[in-house]
Amino acid sequence: MKRTEIATVLKEEKIGEKILIKGWVKAFRSNRFIQVNDGSTINNIQAVLDFENTDEATISKINTAAAVSISGELIASEGKGQRVELIIEQIEILGEANPEEVSKTVMQPKKHSLEFLREQAHLRFRTNTFGAVFRIRHGVSFAIHKYFNDKGYFYIHTPIITGSDAEGAGEMFRVTNLDAKNPPLKDDGSVDWSEDFFGKETNLTVSGQLEAELAAMALGKVYTFGPTFRAENSNTARHLSEFWMIEPEVAFNDLNDNMDLAEDFLSYICKYILENFADDVAFLNEREIQEQKSKPQNERNELTLIERLNFVIANDFERITYTRAIEILHNSKPYKKKKFKYPVEWGIDLQSEHERFLVEKEFKKPVIITDYPASFKAFYMRQNEDGKTVAAMDILFPGIGEIIGGSQREERLEVLKEKCAAFNIAEEDVWWYLDTRKFGTAPHAGFGLGFERMVMFVTGMTNIRDVIPFPRTPKKAEF
Amino acid sequence: MKRTEIATVLKEEKIGEKILIKGWVKAFRSNRFIQVNDGSTINNIQAVLDFENTDEATISKINTAAAVSISGELIASEGKGQRVELIIEQIEILGEANPEEVSKTVMQPKKHSLEFLREQAHLRFRTNTFGAVFRIRHGVSFAIHKYFNDKGYFYIHTPIITGSDAEGAGEMFRVTNLDAKNPPLKDDGSVDWSEDFFGKETNLTVSGQLEAELAAMALGKVYTFGPTFRAENSNTARHLSEFWMIEPEVAFNDLNDNMDLAEDFLSYICKYILENFADDVAFLNEREIQEQKSKPQNERNELTLIERLNFVIANDFERITYTRAIEILHNSKPYKKKKFKYPVEWGIDLQSEHERFLVEKEFKKPVIITDYPASFKAFYMRQNEDGKTVAAMDILFPGIGEIIGGSQREERLEVLKEKCAAFNIAEEDVWWYLDTRKFGTAPHAGFGLGFERMVMFVTGMTNIRDVIPFPRTPKKAEF
Repeated sequence: MKRTEIATVLKEEKIGEKILIKGWVKAFRSNRFIQVNDGSTINNIQAVLDFENTDEATISKINTAAAVSISGELIASEGKGQRVELIIEQIEILGEANPEEVSKTVMQPKKHSLEFLREQAHLRFRTNTFGAVFRIRHGVSFAIHKYFNDKGYFYIHTPIITGSDAEGAGEMFRVTNLDAKNPPLKDDGSVDWSEDFFGKETNLTVSGQLEAELAAMALGKVYTFGPTFRAENSNTARHLSEFWMIEPEVAFNDLNDNMDLAEDFLSYICKYILENFADDVAFLNEREIQEQKSKPQNERNELTLIERLNFVIANDFERITYTRAIEILHNSKPYKKKKFKYPVEWGIDLQSEHERFLVEKEFKKPVIITDYPASFKAFYMRQNEDGKTVAAMDILFPGIGEIIGGSQREERLEVLKEKCAAFNIAEEDVWWYLDTRKFGTAPHAGFGLGFERMVMFVTGMTNIRDVIPFPRTPKKAEF
Repeated sequence: MKRTEIATVLKEEKIGEKILIKGWVKAFRSNRFIQVNDGSTINNIQAVLDFENTDEATISKINTAAAVSISGELIASEGKGQRVELIIEQIEILGEANPEEVSKTVMQPKKHSLEFLREQAHLRFRTNTFGAVFRIRHGVSFAIHKYFNDKGYFYIHTPIITGSDAEGAGEMFRVTNLDAKNPPLKDDGSVDWSEDFFGKETNLTVSGQLEAELAAMALGKVYTFGPTFRAENSNTARHLSEFWMIEPEVAFNDLNDNMDLAEDFLSYICKYILENFADDVAFLNEREIQEQKSKPQNERNELTLIERLNFVIANDFERITYTRAIEILHNSKPYKKKKFKYPVEWGIDLQSEHERFLVEKEFKKPVIITDYPASFKAFYMRQNEDGKTVAAMDILFPGIGEIIGGSQREERLEVLKEKCAAFNIAEEDVWWYLDTRKFGTAPHAGFGLGFERMVMFVTGMTNIRDVIPFPRTPKKAEF
């Protein structure tokens, strides 16, 4: 007999059918009811054991975390908590689990700290919470590919190892296979990178945008979805050293098109997850409600997870310029009462406290801030007519902060060259990027979505380390 | 007016409608017919210029590679080569292109060597061949995600930066941000990796399999799709230093299930591309036919690209054991005539010449070779009852060689520990991997598909550097 997945069994409810399931024991109670899960769904199937007619050796091995193979007949359940159950005809223990050892792991069904779960990242997939998180992570990823594919975008794999450092998005990791202790040196005593694997100094990419632009200026609509890296020593709940990013880039789009795309895209993901991962979302929604109970009233979320997802789907994002944002902050209560830690002044980047005020207090919804001062934005962002600001946009989400950063790109060769000079970027380092402005340049725009931040938003998890299977952070590269 | 993509215009053929298109000039002839392409399809739209009533300055800028915005009425075409054409009412030059400079690039419409095209990887997206290749590359990628998603697999992002080197699949790149010239040293004079970013020596991953197994032993059916790396100095048409790999891993699957999955999966991809990228495949099919004409008869492909794709869909793969493969080779003409360069002997790995004989001469179809000697396969492959061989499988494709390598995994803790000892893998380095065999172990199996090799197969391209946007190979990390 071929194995049926538990998700299928529970969905189809074919009463009277003989089936074979395989999975792991989640619980065994009253010497009769075995809860089995195979990862295909958060829901367990209840298998009913004929205790009298099962040999003792087998029964002694039906422990939490053991792998079992069970065949029998599916019947309507009269018990509470499940609509069907499986009357066991044959049970085989595929893999044992020693109860004492299991009790030291996260598989023991009780409340564990997220820190403890992270230390056992290899086993946390087996818990309800992380099963749900990683099924949803898959769902977000598929929704992204499906959204772009259905709209005629082409997925571009931009390079991970790069010899270019023009992006300037942050500190980079070096990729090398020179001798670590005694690297070859040039006459002047500096390291001779020409001897390295790629014949020059190379790093891990911080963004695929520049390369994506090259593709967009030929294929029209493209997106990247790949790992990016930051060698920054920031140990926060919102930062990873290795994370995934999605970067659509569209020829002929301006900043408004870019905002429309981003908003539609984010709504689509929320809708897709609500529709396709309802059980997992319901579980995480309930989990959050329970968690919130232990928090002081003023720290609790105003909306539940499901309400927040529906809110993004139902409401337009607020769109304001940076200049307007500064005005609003100047007129705000916390500013007047000197509650902001950092200064609020035109020309200075917004701090987290300012963004949170705008999103969580002033507008109470996602906010798109546009047209930032050129001084603290990247060289490739399109200069506005005022000469001071650029056609940039950041999207801020409640509880998450910046989830998307993007811009219309500078398509005018002469302006771009001036920007390179101002940013100390040598033209010979970006000749290939400048070339696209020489041969049929056109307006174009794009943005970057931090994948893990999006997964945080749709799962309600509050630490970014809990939405990626094996987090990489300063001093941590386990598994 | 909103822009309509050329793919949509040509598909819908809404005669009489006013439309706006944007794209790049591919050709301009008779001062009248402009071929425009926007990357959404390999097909151009013909836009018809009213020469008399267009100002000279504009006309002088309608050059190959220039970006244009054109509005007008769509009419049925009476000319050959297109069913509809666009009568220009307004034309705007968005970005000029200097004809003399364009003539030095791959955008000049004439035959260029693939080497020259590679040097201009930033512009080759604009050529017909590479436009087709990269649209299809997207298609293969989406087909892969769709195949697994529709079958209930979960996509797992395994780490790119890894502190584990148990896989042993090949030479690794080091990831570091220690000072390159004067790294911190320990008392014994060796490099003090504890001072590095992750507190230990880290590398770029060669495979996500071990981590995927951890997820499969909880979520049931998972797959990876991410970049992998080899710091090997091999300058061949089949190797890259950075390439993408897909690795499904399935709990409760044995080697037969694994072969069934791989075969179904590869057929699905071929079918998906034939159905969804017919125009691009037709173009590449014709391109190959023309290319073949310049080759001696005996070096030409027996089947066209389209025939090869249909062949994979229509035919079961040949499944033979390694032992049987050796027998066949011993009985072959080239062996008897001493034409093989490398020895054929039980216990020695098969060389490319042997694989090619089996695939291209003996069976003339894809071949799955199973049950290899344990001696040259990885430590995690399941030991067969004969004690000599392991439950491995390699899939060989005509013209490509190995496209898939996989196995049933060793699920028995004691046997796996013996294997670790035999392969000099310290148990403390893989404690997390061994743990899955301690807590409810179960049979499971998986494989790795080299993504670029698959793209080579479905595009007919013969150099792997021509199916990835920006290839990384020894001494090459441009763009």
